[in-house]
Amino acid sequence: MKRTSFEDMNCSVAHCLEVIGEWWTPLIVRDLLMGVSRFDELHARLGISRNVLTERLNRLVEMGVIEKVAYQQRPERFDYRLTEKGGDLWHVITAMREWGDRWEAPDGPPLQLLHRSCGQPVSLTLTCPECGDVEERRELRLTEGPGRGGAVLPVRIVHSD
Amino acid sequence: MKRTSFEDMNCSVAHCLEVIGEWWTPLIVRDLLMGVSRFDELHARLGISRNVLTERLNRLVEMGVIEKVAYQQRPERFDYRLTEKGGDLWHVITAMREWGDRWEAPDGPPLQLLHRSCGQPVSLTLTCPECGDVEERRELRLTEGPGRGGAVLPVRIVHSD
Repeated sequence: MKRTSFEDMNCSVAHCLEVIGEWWTPLIVRDLLMGVSRFDELHARLGISRNVLTERLNRLVEMGVIEKVAYQQRPERFDYRLTEKGGDLWHVITAMREWGDRWEAPDGPPLQLLHRSCGQPVSLTLTCPECGDVEERRELRLTEGPGRGGAVLPVRIVHSD
Repeated sequence: MKRTSFEDMNCSVAHCLEVIGEWWTPLIVRDLLMGVSRFDELHARLGISRNVLTERLNRLVEMGVIEKVAYQQRPERFDYRLTEKGGDLWHVITAMREWGDRWEAPDGPPLQLLHRSCGQPVSLTLTCPECGDVEERRELRLTEGPGRGGAVLPVRIVHSD
């Protein structure tokens, strides 16, 4: 498959895809978020070849999303840990999980994320710092931001005032 | 590239990847969310081949994420519109955009999503129905949900009480 890079697109969605757009990568990040850190455990959980897993992990290290931390010297063995940049992908993984829960989980969610202190299930909401929760997309409008310069992709903004 | 299906994994993240895990698909959904609906406009904005775009759009129709609506009869021409299931991917795209804005936008966000009524930029927050906003991942714990039966993937839950 020909790989295209999105690096030239001045779009934050495309930049996120540079990191997690590879087929297995979001599931690797999911497992790392759940606390899995060893190559062999990732390998067993995901059922992918060691080559593919190695290649994906190396790429994530390159992109600053995970780091390798030696936990044993002879032979050298590593834990894979999310960096701050990598851990910050948790909203992306959470949004994917919530969508799957709503549309592809006829028997209910396989997993639930609960607030430790009260035991209630938490969920992502879009929030306005002035007005609180935003319920619907039509309450929103998209505008150019400060980083818009040098855009190669025409913006199409609907519902703009 | 060998395609693996995640359909057998009882994981909502994997089910979401069934839909948006293909390289171009999240950018197609991004453009549809911005109101682009014509094949030629998608083709021009994304710069992918007509074959690949056709294949991706057909797959999204198959999965119930978009629908084709004829706007002209001779020759027949279609608008591509997100279904409710497809439009519901906006949190996923928004989470990706926010991550890219934070980590890969040195000059600031290319685009901003504003609350129409007050003009403030909105953002995704994880919210507890009892306690309000949740700031940190460690305030949360993951548990098995009602749809956990028949799981093929071992759950690894850290920070569980």
